Amino acid sequence: MSSEFEQRRSLIGAGLENRDLDAMLVTSPANVRYLAGFTGSNGALLVLGGDAVFFTDPRYAIQSAHEVSCRTQVCKGPILPAVAELVSSRRLRRIGFERAHVSYDAFECLRANLPLNSSLEPMAGWLEAHRMLKSESEIEAIRRSVATNSKAFEAAARRVRPGMRELDLAAEIDHQMRRLGAEKPSFETIVATGERSALPHAHPGGAVFRTGQPILIDMGTFRDGYASDMTRMLFPGAPSARMRRLYGAVLEAQLAAIDTVRPGVTTARVDGAARKVLKAYKLERAFVHSTGHGLGLEIHEPPRIGKKDKTKLAAGMTITIEPGVYLEGLGGIRIEDTVLVTPSGCEVLTPTSKDLRLV
Amino acid sequence: MSSEFEQRRSLIGAGLENRDLDAMLVTSPANVRYLAGFTGSNGALLVLGGDAVFFTDPRYAIQSAHEVSCRTQVCKGPILPAVAELVSSRRLRRIGFERAHVSYDAFECLRANLPLNSSLEPMAGWLEAHRMLKSESEIEAIRRSVATNSKAFEAAARRVRPGMRELDLAAEIDHQMRRLGAEKPSFETIVATGERSALPHAHPGGAVFRTGQPILIDMGTFRDGYASDMTRMLFPGAPSARMRRLYGAVLEAQLAAIDTVRPGVTTARVDGAARKVLKAYKLERAFVHSTGHGLGLEIHEPPRIGKKDKTKLAAGMTITIEPGVYLEGLGGIRIEDTVLVTPSGCEVLTPTSKDLRLV
Repeated sequence: MSSEFEQRRSLIGAGLENRDLDAMLVTSPANVRYLAGFTGSNGALLVLGGDAVFFTDPRYAIQSAHEVSCRTQVCKGPILPAVAELVSSRRLRRIGFERAHVSYDAFECLRANLPLNSSLEPMAGWLEAHRMLKSESEIEAIRRSVATNSKAFEAAARRVRPGMRELDLAAEIDHQMRRLGAEKPSFETIVATGERSALPHAHPGGAVFRTGQPILIDMGTFRDGYASDMTRMLFPGAPSARMRRLYGAVLEAQLAAIDTVRPGVTTARVDGAARKVLKAYKLERAFVHSTGHGLGLEIHEPPRIGKKDKTKLAAGMTITIEPGVYLEGLGGIRIEDTVLVTPSGCEVLTPTSKDLRLV
Repeated sequence: MSSEFEQRRSLIGAGLENRDLDAMLVTSPANVRYLAGFTGSNGALLVLGGDAVFFTDPRYAIQSAHEVSCRTQVCKGPILPAVAELVSSRRLRRIGFERAHVSYDAFECLRANLPLNSSLEPMAGWLEAHRMLKSESEIEAIRRSVATNSKAFEAAARRVRPGMRELDLAAEIDHQMRRLGAEKPSFETIVATGERSALPHAHPGGAVFRTGQPILIDMGTFRDGYASDMTRMLFPGAPSARMRRLYGAVLEAQLAAIDTVRPGVTTARVDGAARKVLKAYKLERAFVHSTGHGLGLEIHEPPRIGKKDKTKLAAGMTITIEPGVYLEGLGGIRIEDTVLVTPSGCEVLTPTSKDLRLV
């Protein structure tokens, strides 16, 4: 494992000169994990031209010795002043930092502790651009995560009965994930039934499953640090004709979007393909979010698959495709898969059937 | 419920003038929930003298209509430019913001969108100081959270057997929490056995429980949005004499710290009481973290109970008391309760026994 982290650090170290930087300070937990393998919550990595130094606090002294292969400094006090001290002792001038992952507070703390002739240079998206393209070992981890998630779905779906509550099913899903080897859900599992399925991010509550009412389930796992994401609908008893039409329209939109996924295509075009289908059904105003997002060490990471997003897809990207429609007072339908971009098109990693499913 | 949120907003609104502010922009999810009742992930609240405006995105349009009692603006694009527009249209000059909860990026976005004669004023700890003092309804929520957590511990502890893995017990604990009505764990449940118990923040893994080896369990729930936190040790079979002495020393330190908790006492003094006991056992260097922390809508919130923390305790604060010792190669012991500061001293909310427990 450590050699993969070393390779990644070398790539970033080699990119410093082009960006006119002497060092890059990495503080977002996912980027720290990507470059140093550290799985704790309080760590920072300073990437230099030829090496890197990892900073953490005494709670993580033993853990970081196991996980992190580069030089490590265990700080008794706050981490950032120790970073500034190293910058000063090595006479580094231009220090990149993650502008989206450094608080106003942290920025001011760094600025106050750095020598006057050092400058802080806001950077965005550099590390995330590397992370968009998954290595073989990362793709294998995502495959395991997706497989675990789909198995947990099947195990939980078998227990769905009219009269069961949303929160009972959510607890069952989370338990099945863990039983099957996931570290944890990759986000709070969504189970929403009836009208509540029209809330795209509903917390599972006391609402009870009723015959003919849709159940929307949006779930994902973290396995070996990597995320999966899937949405499926279950119907206890036959849904109304209108609900069936809605389901058919969303599935058509989802398949149309998947059909456009290949290297070189912009994410806006993928989003547009889903939106075009829903427009033909006069449902475009009920589709209130974007078509998908990248996933990996984080459940949401670049690229975004939205109306205005111009990222070009490339082989090795892992993304979700998840159009949905939400009608207040009636309910919502969403269908979502995790998809790998391949050299010739794409592979839908999620094995779970998308046929309209009665339980 | 909504009247409690309105009262809180009024208190903050009334405090603006003293701080020479025209408005306070609240962006941290816990503070947004505290002041507006919103439980989603993307929301901001602008508190003005006489009213408040809540901002969110279309995914939360229906949910926020149910949860939020003040005027709400659903933004199709990013939220912060919409906030800036309102500031501009109302001719507000001095806008407070949460310096620890606004990224460098967000700060620059606000600055770029605000009129030139408006200024951004960094604020810290104001809302958190209000949140430190829990209302009756908040204390009731924390009691429910603590009770749920302890019941989940008992249900899971009954299933512990030699040969079981850390991750199996962690999954069982999380399942019991949910079954008993918790929304979710308040942090990733820690189960660490043998030498691994010397990692204060270990992820549960494949290590197996063995006779005589300690099992450290650190667990908490969120219930009705409020956190609980508890650490207990289990011993499958009799521990060594040395391990028993360590357990006794940590328990003595924990009880000594609890004994100091009353209004007017500084948190440093509570921390010092635990540290003094461990020093008498020559274990002070093995106690690598602070004695505790506040908890409420967040699992970690002010006050911190550490060496240098001067906050004076007051009735209505809820804190943890959790000294621990960690010896690499041998293992760790930590004992933690959730404690309510009362007018006359304190009440240990956690009902779970602290006797050395064989399973």
